[in-house]
Amino acid sequence: MTTTSVASAVAPRPVAIVVLAAGKGTRMKSDLHKVLHPIAGRPMLLHLLDSAAALAPERVVAVVGAGREQVEAAVAPLSAAIAHQAEQLGTGHAVMQAEAALAGFDGDVLILYGDVPLVGTATMRAMLDRLNAADAPAVVVLGFRPADPGAYGRVIVTPGTDRVERIVEFKDAGPAERAETLCNSGLMAARSADLFALLGRLGNDNAAGEYYLTDIVALAGGAAAIEVSADEVAGVNSRAELAGVEAAWQQARRARAMAEGATLIAPETVWFAHDTQLGRDVVIEPNVVFGPGVTVADGVTIHAFSHLEGARVERGAELGPYARLRPGAVIGANAKVGNFVEIKKATLGAGAKANHLSYIGDADVGAKANIGAGTITCNYDGFFKYRTVIGEGAFVGSNSALVAPVSIGKGAIVGAGSVVVRDVTDDSLAVARGRQEERGGWAARFRAAMKAKKDGK
Amino acid sequence: MTTTSVASAVAPRPVAIVVLAAGKGTRMKSDLHKVLHPIAGRPMLLHLLDSAAALAPERVVAVVGAGREQVEAAVAPLSAAIAHQAEQLGTGHAVMQAEAALAGFDGDVLILYGDVPLVGTATMRAMLDRLNAADAPAVVVLGFRPADPGAYGRVIVTPGTDRVERIVEFKDAGPAERAETLCNSGLMAARSADLFALLGRLGNDNAAGEYYLTDIVALAGGAAAIEVSADEVAGVNSRAELAGVEAAWQQARRARAMAEGATLIAPETVWFAHDTQLGRDVVIEPNVVFGPGVTVADGVTIHAFSHLEGARVERGAELGPYARLRPGAVIGANAKVGNFVEIKKATLGAGAKANHLSYIGDADVGAKANIGAGTITCNYDGFFKYRTVIGEGAFVGSNSALVAPVSIGKGAIVGAGSVVVRDVTDDSLAVARGRQEERGGWAARFRAAMKAKKDGK
Amino acid sequence: MTTTSVASAVAPRPVAIVVLAAGKGTRMKSDLHKVLHPIAGRPMLLHLLDSAAALAPERVVAVVGAGREQVEAAVAPLSAAIAHQAEQLGTGHAVMQAEAALAGFDGDVLILYGDVPLVGTATMRAMLDRLNAADAPAVVVLGFRPADPGAYGRVIVTPGTDRVERIVEFKDAGPAERAETLCNSGLMAARSADLFALLGRLGNDNAAGEYYLTDIVALAGGAAAIEVSADEVAGVNSRAELAGVEAAWQQARRARAMAEGATLIAPETVWFAHDTQLGRDVVIEPNVVFGPGVTVADGVTIHAFSHLEGARVERGAELGPYARLRPGAVIGANAKVGNFVEIKKATLGAGAKANHLSYIGDADVGAKANIGAGTITCNYDGFFKYRTVIGEGAFVGSNSALVAPVSIGKGAIVGAGSVVVRDVTDDSLAVARGRQEERGGWAARFRAAMKAKKDGK
Repeated sequence: MTTTSVASAVAPRPVAIVVLAAGKGTRMKSDLHKVLHPIAGRPMLLHLLDSAAALAPERVVAVVGAGREQVEAAVAPLSAAIAHQAEQLGTGHAVMQAEAALAGFDGDVLILYGDVPLVGTATMRAMLDRLNAADAPAVVVLGFRPADPGAYGRVIVTPGTDRVERIVEFKDAGPAERAETLCNSGLMAARSADLFALLGRLGNDNAAGEYYLTDIVALAGGAAAIEVSADEVAGVNSRAELAGVEAAWQQARRARAMAEGATLIAPETVWFAHDTQLGRDVVIEPNVVFGPGVTVADGVTIHAFSHLEGARVERGAELGPYARLRPGAVIGANAKVGNFVEIKKATLGAGAKANHLSYIGDADVGAKANIGAGTITCNYDGFFKYRTVIGEGAFVGSNSALVAPVSIGKGAIVGAGSVVVRDVTDDSLAVARGRQEERGGWAARFRAAMKAKKDGK
Repeated sequence: MTTTSVASAVAPRPVAIVVLAAGKGTRMKSDLHKVLHPIAGRPMLLHLLDSAAALAPERVVAVVGAGREQVEAAVAPLSAAIAHQAEQLGTGHAVMQAEAALAGFDGDVLILYGDVPLVGTATMRAMLDRLNAADAPAVVVLGFRPADPGAYGRVIVTPGTDRVERIVEFKDAGPAERAETLCNSGLMAARSADLFALLGRLGNDNAAGEYYLTDIVALAGGAAAIEVSADEVAGVNSRAELAGVEAAWQQARRARAMAEGATLIAPETVWFAHDTQLGRDVVIEPNVVFGPGVTVADGVTIHAFSHLEGARVERGAELGPYARLRPGAVIGANAKVGNFVEIKKATLGAGAKANHLSYIGDADVGAKANIGAGTITCNYDGFFKYRTVIGEGAFVGSNSALVAPVSIGKGAIVGAGSVVVRDVTDDSLAVARGRQEERGGWAARFRAAMKAKKDGK
Repeated sequence: MTTTSVASAVAPRPVAIVVLAAGKGTRMKSDLHKVLHPIAGRPMLLHLLDSAAALAPERVVAVVGAGREQVEAAVAPLSAAIAHQAEQLGTGHAVMQAEAALAGFDGDVLILYGDVPLVGTATMRAMLDRLNAADAPAVVVLGFRPADPGAYGRVIVTPGTDRVERIVEFKDAGPAERAETLCNSGLMAARSADLFALLGRLGNDNAAGEYYLTDIVALAGGAAAIEVSADEVAGVNSRAELAGVEAAWQQARRARAMAEGATLIAPETVWFAHDTQLGRDVVIEPNVVFGPGVTVADGVTIHAFSHLEGARVERGAELGPYARLRPGAVIGANAKVGNFVEIKKATLGAGAKANHLSYIGDADVGAKANIGAGTITCNYDGFFKYRTVIGEGAFVGSNSALVAPVSIGKGAIVGAGSVVVRDVTDDSLAVARGRQEERGGWAARFRAAMKAKKDGK
């Protein structure tokens, strides 16, 4: 029987997550709390909590200082507790603030940082697994090897093992210690009883007068180290670092999209949201932006300069260039949405087409219907929104305005340039436009007069 | 007399091209045959055949396995033969399948790979030239030096010469051989008689039971090596590699555009097609996409976010931002196509303008005509397309719909918001819109009622 | 008293700027003078003169050869003198041509190059400060250390000092000199009297028969060297180098934007102009292009694919995706400009909205007014432009055409699809559209006829 099967045979211990999010984030120069700045369209704190959620934690506590209300609102849907750190007295002090919220909890505590958002579930699980292995230490720390270790604290490990002898702040490190390349990410796992016992012994006898979480390693007489890539523990302290983390996330997502069978002609110009779903043989031209909530089925082509958000695109549909799908857009199989077309809370049936310069909002467009260039659904009266229903196989002539609520029957035709204010019956022709009149020679006289005016005569 | 002049004095031997395209391409996860995935808008196999076409080959044979019909359809316009490799028994076996198609051919055979699409004419010619030089070997192989030679087979060359002693698979290579950096691309050239004689002696006594083309080097008692850059022999086995080859192609094309006198403000954001032609002093702003079939004359400015396909743009014209030219668009000298304007199968005369939010399809617009914002040519009745003709110097007022077939005379004016259904004579004014009516105070009453409704009263 | 305070206590000497811009720029393959190719929307020569302007120079002289008229026109607003170098006899000869324009000037001369545009004010000032320090040399040169020193002339400095012993052309340099990495940028500063005395002694006894400015260092018996980054002295001789300098400028500008508190989701896809101003907590999605003259206040969100030029955007406004602001656009606080909307010489009041497919030109839109989808202001009659005034809280129905000059009263409503040609009074409803008519069964009969025609019956 292998170690793995032993581990899986034992019921896992309950898990609690403590996320430190009390930093001021001054360098962001923002009114928005640092941990709420989005990555791939989702606040970075929630990225981290999404990854943690896969561990099915019994409790989640976010420790917050200034901007507490913002964070509280953001985590509200996740049933996480908020602990308040009124004074910024160090990371150890921050974790102490979570103690009340963890009262009665007996299990493993994983300590994360709200501004280190890309740590994945696998890494979290590896830390907890290590904490539950046969030779379990009291504390598990997470190390990484950056390209330039610089002034990071060094994790000193007994060679050939994962046993942490000590963690040394860079300023206190001698030359041999500085030559070590394993750096301290600050993330930790410990059993709850151990953790708070160790924190209770923590001092603040240092220059800053702060309680450092790292010091519990020394108090515990060592730890075990798990190592991850530097990218995974990249922190966000400035907008430039935010952009760096976004770029790392996007690069990984693009690679996954290609591996799963999508063509990205210029992968570096496609921006995904945290929850984008793509089918096989999807082709994406350069410069496509996905907002949250998009699902794209097999065989869909998305031309350049398209922007999709909250939309579902069915098999074989073709979008863009310059297609904009807004929340509630559902594009049927083999339907087409062309250039400068906006679709919002509207369904296009299979094989329907809206190819040019249209706004289709709050509408149901039947299968194989054809929406002419410049068609506008007039769905709003300043107070309420109304629906437009367009029947299967209907043909809406170009530059028409459909004043909702209104329905165009199956197979009906709307003459170009019409303003449709009443329902059109199936298979009828509706025309609603002015009569054409001509004044012969008028243009020539007008030009002569305007030229004279322009010349100042 | 130099070697070069001797070579050019002799009539060149006939050339045949064998392209191996029988690989399954499983990692592409695609229903489209791997060699048909496009680069710069053209299937990669055709890129390769275009480069080979410059050698004026007497015969071209593509060896195909699964997906034969797709490849056959793609190469149909090129008069290439298709050889079918029913079983995948190795590269040597694949070349054997071409023998029937080369019956009666006596000359040089160049063996290419459909998924190694960027090999250029110069390289192909260098291989054939080497095969025809005074000390001609029976086989010429193509080597490259990748950044990381990894598990590639090594080409072992007698130092100071181009004589290949042997080609060693990585797994069979000793430390000294692994230290060699010249790697085997798999491309070869050989005289037809030699080639099939050598193939006839090929065995499949190896772990995979396959016939390896490379083994003919040993049977021939050596070869000569030509060396090219690793970029030129980059292969495509996944969508990520496809994107890499596309990127390499684009980077080279952008460099050429700039060298020839075009300004690319952000070169990395301009995507060319395989056949794009650009004049001198063309200025291209960030984010411009060229589909196939575009010719741009001197002094044209293309603003950001424009998308051109199948279009000709004449001297001094100005496009975009957000201009979309579709196949059949011809933009005359100094004409302007502005934002959110789509032009399809339409000619804009010299100095004509369509600056905003218009669809001009199946139309002839005369010189210096002005197309107002929001103008739509209604060119389609659901069954047929009809043309719109707009005379020289005509002025089409904004938000007009021109219902084709229709013609607007020279110098005529169409009043804003008109729906034009009948021809307009030269120099006339045509107006076709509803009469304006006003209901005093109605809006105030409506607002009051709607507010009450919204408040639930 | 420190050196610095001595320096600042003494009245600074007058400064003259000589910019060499006589190079032919052949490799640009352009009809536009090389130094007038823009970077961030401003001719590179003017970038350099902007940086020099911060030194408050008493005189500015541009030395020009071919294309003199183009340069003269470009610098006209800057009151710079133009000196003509009829023959290209070297950089020393070029500076001599500036002597007449500097007649009577007694002070420090800074010699710059029009095609080395990114040299900053701080570097210029450092050169002049060095020229005025206690141990002032007659000449100050500017060195840099490129990644590959290649064939650059080497600046040989006495170790541990900034004293230039000599400058050696690469071709004349021995191995020890070639091993030096400080290269000569060609930029210099010298007192006017020294400069022209040294130039008077310059010979042209070399292969090219040219007068080299660099030779004054030997004539002066040495110089002092200031060192800058290679990026700052990057020169432009081709469109590829132009793109490289543009990229360096943009990268620095993006970093500054983020440091000052803007979020750039994909910084590499945002292009700034030389004078863009951004507030705090501005969020910029991927692919946004700024032309010259844009000011964006705090808390503005700019969605993807937007293009701004000559516009002011006030606090909390939201733009795009696909918003185009043209010169004279003023977007009020919390106003919204949505997709495929163009705003030109128009003001949107606070909280006003133009969300879809509209052209608003030469207009004043009141606070909280709502502009429906597809609205077009018809502002041009082919000769003159006219204004549209839309009152506070007005509601313009979708697909309306407003034929200027026209005004829509406060709180008025325009019915969808109207063509408004007369003023609408406050709180009224205006409707101007055709009456809707229906022909039952017509569409079915039409389809049958067209199908028959298509089938060739």
